[in-house]
Amino acid sequence: MKNSHNVKVNHQSISHYLHYTNKILGLNNKSSEYLTKSLIGSSLRGVDSHGLRLYPHYVSAIIGGRINKKPKMKFKMKTTSACILDANNGLGHHASYLAADKVSKIASKTGIGIVGIINSSHNAAAGAYNIEIAKNNCIGLSFTHSDAMVSPHGGYKKFNGTNPYSFCAPLKNDKYFLVDFATSNIPWNKVLRARGNNWKLSGELVVDKKGRMTKNPFTADSLYPLGGISYGHKGFGLSSSIEILCGPLTGMLHGFRLLPMNGPDFKTYRKLGHILIAIKIDVFQSKTQYYRKINNYINDLKKQKSNIKKKQIYFPGELEIIEEKKRINNGIPFDKEMINAYKLIDKKLKIDRFKTILKSVSK
Amino acid sequence: MKNSHNVKVNHQSISHYLHYTNKILGLNNKSSEYLTKSLIGSSLRGVDSHGLRLYPHYVSAIIGGRINKKPKMKFKMKTTSACILDANNGLGHHASYLAADKVSKIASKTGIGIVGIINSSHNAAAGAYNIEIAKNNCIGLSFTHSDAMVSPHGGYKKFNGTNPYSFCAPLKNDKYFLVDFATSNIPWNKVLRARGNNWKLSGELVVDKKGRMTKNPFTADSLYPLGGISYGHKGFGLSSSIEILCGPLTGMLHGFRLLPMNGPDFKTYRKLGHILIAIKIDVFQSKTQYYRKINNYINDLKKQKSNIKKKQIYFPGELEIIEEKKRINNGIPFDKEMINAYKLIDKKLKIDRFKTILKSVSK
Repeated sequence: MKNSHNVKVNHQSISHYLHYTNKILGLNNKSSEYLTKSLIGSSLRGVDSHGLRLYPHYVSAIIGGRINKKPKMKFKMKTTSACILDANNGLGHHASYLAADKVSKIASKTGIGIVGIINSSHNAAAGAYNIEIAKNNCIGLSFTHSDAMVSPHGGYKKFNGTNPYSFCAPLKNDKYFLVDFATSNIPWNKVLRARGNNWKLSGELVVDKKGRMTKNPFTADSLYPLGGISYGHKGFGLSSSIEILCGPLTGMLHGFRLLPMNGPDFKTYRKLGHILIAIKIDVFQSKTQYYRKINNYINDLKKQKSNIKKKQIYFPGELEIIEEKKRINNGIPFDKEMINAYKLIDKKLKIDRFKTILKSVSK
Repeated sequence: MKNSHNVKVNHQSISHYLHYTNKILGLNNKSSEYLTKSLIGSSLRGVDSHGLRLYPHYVSAIIGGRINKKPKMKFKMKTTSACILDANNGLGHHASYLAADKVSKIASKTGIGIVGIINSSHNAAAGAYNIEIAKNNCIGLSFTHSDAMVSPHGGYKKFNGTNPYSFCAPLKNDKYFLVDFATSNIPWNKVLRARGNNWKLSGELVVDKKGRMTKNPFTADSLYPLGGISYGHKGFGLSSSIEILCGPLTGMLHGFRLLPMNGPDFKTYRKLGHILIAIKIDVFQSKTQYYRKINNYINDLKKQKSNIKKKQIYFPGELEIIEEKKRINNGIPFDKEMINAYKLIDKKLKIDRFKTILKSVSK
């Protein structure tokens, strides 16, 4: 093994591993396929927080019973351009890939489509499903809510989830313009890492139990919305709009009333909602015109100067496309924490499959 | 006159004034009606930056020839749920109100609708049109781009406009949940006010000509995206997604290539694009269920504690609803700068109408 603290694992090997363990867990084929596709896709693009790092979490959720392993997902067209997908408490990744395909088909016919997903579970990176929409010649908007993590602007107790905003527009040559960000400044995971490493937090990122902005990760109690003290109404407004789409509009509970992702209850269905919207790129003009115009935009953007010498400006999603190429060749990094978590899966399932992967990496 | 520095003008008096001056300017009835509705609506809600303060600007734009005073606005359905509106270089307010009505009608039939507006001009507050969509029992998303004002994240020259994100969801009793914010931290107007008052700027709001973050309004050259140095990729990503919808998707130029709102050219059509999306509130469930669920969300939000003693948490748009009631009774504040700008309109049009309003205020 090169270095047990940070090895690089071939994406095909880890894909086989996931399929193997998913089978032992009792997931049906489609759920296994889409879970694997979502996590490996995100890890290849460098979105480590929402990629394979989450797999041990899903294993716990599946074993705990929170996830229906053999869901019967059902679409129901509600109107010409709107459809509901009942995820039957299965994996959010499974539901979201199905919905991405459906919403693109609707948009291809009627110009714009919306799919509301109900009775779902955590679906990892919202952007993953948007990329599928972009592959289908549509612009995608992909939203999900989550349990309470972020205080209202001007408040201090966890209320909204980190509700991500995700937008994807296709570019030429199978590239895409991908925006995908949490509407808090940082995820809770960064607070935990700061605790673990005894770091201070910088900026207006978290509040303590008494509502004071703090840089001390140990007294941090709630994340603060994007924009901080002065402009957090913007981050909170954005987050709330996503909450309304995923909760009240779909009919699911809003984030504040959802069971926490991280337990302790891993048994009860969480019943999350997601919203996917697709807009046909040639709805107002020809495809050629669309591609020429978005290409002009990207070209103008990339001609802008960076405020760091010798650096360049990247369009949203560009670094991920570059990273993907690298990681397909060089593998996906696994740090110590991940390695231990995967070893624990081996232990739980009484297999030694991940150990074998680690050995092959060392060769 | 109570105080020439800040008088309060009755909204009906100022409405009559606008209709009168619009007629002299040669605006057709519909353009006059919608321009007046948009500006007075925003001023009543307390959104002073995008209300009557802008009217002197539109007068210059109309006199300059940038605006088609008698536009023939034409809808063309492109697909079942998508429609284009050619604004024929008329006022953006006129086009946007027409589009808000149209997009709601589409959504009522097919669940979700999109209207792209082309060959338009500045349309003031994006939220104004979303409120109309909400009145039609739909959730609204209203986007517009503008000329270059905000640097890319990591860059330092003006590139995107302040591209606002606006979302509106209807609540019970004709109320609404309204999010409407620029994707920069501050508008350029705040830089100008800081210059005028010799104030320093706080936070990571603007960069100078060499790309350095600065607090000096006099060396400020470009606005910086929401999120500042560490999280400005989020503000810039959001802004870019709005740019792609309003520019490349509609077929208009992107913001970087648009003529500047503030001239010097007031003669040439600017050809802006806007996007309106509406989603029927009862697309996935009944109206009763929707209202019950969004009401639960608002109630939970309003129960949250403020980090300022004795203050309460307001939902986005709530303060504007409260302000509107006050201003309908007490009038809309006009500060010295506005009064002078309106006096100048009187002068330009050789009338003394605004003077008369000021006199009536003093009685």
